[in-house]
Amino acid sequence: MKHLLVGLSAVILATPALAQSVDRAAINGIIDQGLNHSEVMQTAAYLTDRIGGRMTNSPQMRQAEQWSQQRFRDWGLSNVRAEGFEFGRGWSIVRSSARMTSPRPIELRAIPVAWTPSTNGTVSAGVVVAPITKVEDFDRWRGKLSGKIVMLTRPDTGSEPTEPAFRRWTDAELRDRNTYMQPQHVHVPVERQLKMAEFSGRLDAFLAEEGALAWVRMSQRDGGLLHGTGYTYQVGATPKLPGMEIAAEDYRRLARLALTDTPPTLELVSEVRFHDEDVNAYNILADIPGSDRSGEYVMAGAHLDSWVASDGAQDNAAGSAVVMEAARILSQLKVKPKRTIRFALWNGEEQGILGSLAYVDRYLATRAPSSDPALAALPSNRTWRNRWPIEPRPGYRDLVAYFNLDNGSGKIRGINAEGNVAAAPIFQEWLAPFASMGATTVSLRPSGGTDHVYMQTVGVPGYQFIQDPLDYSSRIHHTSIDSYDHLKPEDLRQAAVILASFLLNAANRDAPLPRMPLPTEPTPTDPFAYPAAD
Amino acid sequence: MKHLLVGLSAVILATPALAQSVDRAAINGIIDQGLNHSEVMQTAAYLTDRIGGRMTNSPQMRQAEQWSQQRFRDWGLSNVRAEGFEFGRGWSIVRSSARMTSPRPIELRAIPVAWTPSTNGTVSAGVVVAPITKVEDFDRWRGKLSGKIVMLTRPDTGSEPTEPAFRRWTDAELRDRNTYMQPQHVHVPVERQLKMAEFSGRLDAFLAEEGALAWVRMSQRDGGLLHGTGYTYQVGATPKLPGMEIAAEDYRRLARLALTDTPPTLELVSEVRFHDEDVNAYNILADIPGSDRSGEYVMAGAHLDSWVASDGAQDNAAGSAVVMEAARILSQLKVKPKRTIRFALWNGEEQGILGSLAYVDRYLATRAPSSDPALAALPSNRTWRNRWPIEPRPGYRDLVAYFNLDNGSGKIRGINAEGNVAAAPIFQEWLAPFASMGATTVSLRPSGGTDHVYMQTVGVPGYQFIQDPLDYSSRIHHTSIDSYDHLKPEDLRQAAVILASFLLNAANRDAPLPRMPLPTEPTPTDPFAYPAAD
Repeated sequence: MKHLLVGLSAVILATPALAQSVDRAAINGIIDQGLNHSEVMQTAAYLTDRIGGRMTNSPQMRQAEQWSQQRFRDWGLSNVRAEGFEFGRGWSIVRSSARMTSPRPIELRAIPVAWTPSTNGTVSAGVVVAPITKVEDFDRWRGKLSGKIVMLTRPDTGSEPTEPAFRRWTDAELRDRNTYMQPQHVHVPVERQLKMAEFSGRLDAFLAEEGALAWVRMSQRDGGLLHGTGYTYQVGATPKLPGMEIAAEDYRRLARLALTDTPPTLELVSEVRFHDEDVNAYNILADIPGSDRSGEYVMAGAHLDSWVASDGAQDNAAGSAVVMEAARILSQLKVKPKRTIRFALWNGEEQGILGSLAYVDRYLATRAPSSDPALAALPSNRTWRNRWPIEPRPGYRDLVAYFNLDNGSGKIRGINAEGNVAAAPIFQEWLAPFASMGATTVSLRPSGGTDHVYMQTVGVPGYQFIQDPLDYSSRIHHTSIDSYDHLKPEDLRQAAVILASFLLNAANRDAPLPRMPLPTEPTPTDPFAYPAAD
Repeated sequence: MKHLLVGLSAVILATPALAQSVDRAAINGIIDQGLNHSEVMQTAAYLTDRIGGRMTNSPQMRQAEQWSQQRFRDWGLSNVRAEGFEFGRGWSIVRSSARMTSPRPIELRAIPVAWTPSTNGTVSAGVVVAPITKVEDFDRWRGKLSGKIVMLTRPDTGSEPTEPAFRRWTDAELRDRNTYMQPQHVHVPVERQLKMAEFSGRLDAFLAEEGALAWVRMSQRDGGLLHGTGYTYQVGATPKLPGMEIAAEDYRRLARLALTDTPPTLELVSEVRFHDEDVNAYNILADIPGSDRSGEYVMAGAHLDSWVASDGAQDNAAGSAVVMEAARILSQLKVKPKRTIRFALWNGEEQGILGSLAYVDRYLATRAPSSDPALAALPSNRTWRNRWPIEPRPGYRDLVAYFNLDNGSGKIRGINAEGNVAAAPIFQEWLAPFASMGATTVSLRPSGGTDHVYMQTVGVPGYQFIQDPLDYSSRIHHTSIDSYDHLKPEDLRQAAVILASFLLNAANRDAPLPRMPLPTEPTPTDPFAYPAAD
């Protein structure tokens, strides 16, 4: 497989007809606008420093929705709009703190867990380390939690970070990425997932019945980093108990002291607000209209929502600012594309890629409802992949290419062609002007976890760029240091230039990009697989 | 130079008389006690989790002084004692917090700077970024600081940690350490240092005169880590203004927002206490008496004091616990050494290696006072290296070897022979039983920065072990994550075993270890050096 890229490049270089389909003079204009007159960092700074963490339906996210639409309008885009989908409540932190008061006073690093309630003042209590992970554990802890702050995580030991936190892809690693992976069609039962979701409600009820005052959990990363992710955003689903995440070092200290003759007592303060004036979340859309009346369009997107432990900079003000900057660049250059170019800032990505799924379901394709009433009652995203057949919407073929950005602040090193062997050589051609900026790789390996995936599940051409990893996974992703200062201006400028160029190429290409077949229910990969154990 | 070690090993292996001077049966006993019955982690846990950060003369350090003496007594050591030296005040944090209140509310990661006063409640104010670094800067800021919180650090950008945070020495790196470095005798004028010390007082006075309410500085590391180091510990030297250190990410955000039309306002709370009931700091000493009446002794030491942003685990509960564990092991084995074995837990190391210097000055050697009255008025450590001649105390030759541990939690990989080419082959022999535990290297390169250095300055044989670096320098040293969970139990057990073995070897060796000559005023390395620019 390592020779595929070389082979493709050779084909491209030997095919003048293909090479001419890229308007390199237009790309020079994009580069000039994107590198000499960039506003990508101003955009990122407003989203991060000024607005801050943008949890879905929080006041900060509402502000970002308004501000980003205004920017699109300022830049002269058309059809700037907010498209709602049902989500649930917003939630925001007013103030919080955590202290150990005995055996000695220290401030703890802690954050309220998203969508848990306030402490209503200060909760002062001793702790019980009760790593309850299933309903069967309840009996063991019955009668032992009253008046306590319950530490729910079994503590681990400190980490040994033996890899560099910050890195860029090597050429060899990029070549290795282009390794085709056969799809694995294995039945993943949703029942277990259901059981887990149900468990968190039962745990909350159990803790409340037992008279526990609050619960805390350990941060999954150490180094003092916090996350605070949580999911009880449905209206009316307010947990009974406040929950906080405590930095791993602080949590482990508490857990160790709990084993001594001087067990700790804590003071927790979590003052939070729920916002349920409007349960819809909104995707932000803006267009540069195409000259062609076919209805075809190309689209770039990134999720505007974030978590709240910091300012959602690498995840994903970076991608949002690049998408907005591509819009600004193309608008500034007054391009008149053949197909419409659409810019999307998704919402609810962090709670399950909900915004882009809503768009898919509304405009591109839906899937048959589940025949099981229990499953049919679930949010659509939970069962989406297992429902057949796919039913294309009228706009199914209008979207000729979607390009997503959601891997932090690293520059673009290539693109994931998501198994589309017909699109790959075209992308290779589109990347050619940017080889000296480090973007060279077309990988057929699928990528996941963000807003192009639900498009891929219905055979719509959603692609995600390959970005340098930097310190995204190692320390930034969802953490308390995901702030503006860990963005890399040169990387984001490069990304905006390449994205704008891809959009223009896709919009002006004579024929739409080659598509994948409409997916139909797959044959199981392993016909002899035993059903999964419960 | 890389061949020196090989040469030394060959000599040792070919010299049976030398090989017999190590009692390997006794070392088997030490290994058994140190690996099968270790208490080093219990000791470390008490110092870190239970007592916490042990700033010199703080209540926590007082507790550590008492507790460590009690442990030595429990283990049967003799002459357990606290030896005072004049230091200054203690200081401790009762409670602290920092918030940004506008343009949006967020909790900031911050810590009071050591030995700065309380805020007396909450200080609420806007900020001014005023990176004042010299008296000449005052004019620029006059009239602009009234009622403000002054941000004194010029912000930098985020870090790119491209090296692994956690690492162990490779064999090649260990070989490279043994590279002799010629001493560089360059006159370092103390005047500049004096000026800097004076500047911090003048800055405090200027800020107070101008009506500033508090100052903040940026953490020198990013990733949300804090330090809080400060030096105004002299009685009566209380600064007028409270000072806090803010995490780099939070500080940079404030500094960026200060450039916008929505400059931030802060709420700072720093509730601290000064402790001046006793201005002496105390070194803790304990002995296993030698059978020989010569007065000769060997000594191991580590500093018990720490900074306060976390629990002073790698710096230096680790070294302290290893020294205490070596005492426990040897005491438990009821060794009857020829020379006395002394265990020292130093104090005031973090403020200038003050405790071990006090010991040196009292028992080993002193130096002539400065002839310049301004310099003579300074604390002795400031001018120590430049005062000649050295005047040996009566006990000068009694100390035959001192072994220091102060490089975090990493296991021992060898020892710095500090230029002593006569001691090096003996250390090579002493390490031989521990080659399979990873300790093999004798390096002639000098090491610095901790409690053996003032011994070295007067020609007393103070040595420091080479330890695996782990994540000490990269993220732990003086930071808010220097807690117990970043200690490595296997490493500390190994270190205690090797230290105990070295102490027994040094105590029982027929002849004292070879010493260096008494230093006399050196000839300048570069006779044509121009005086340093001011």
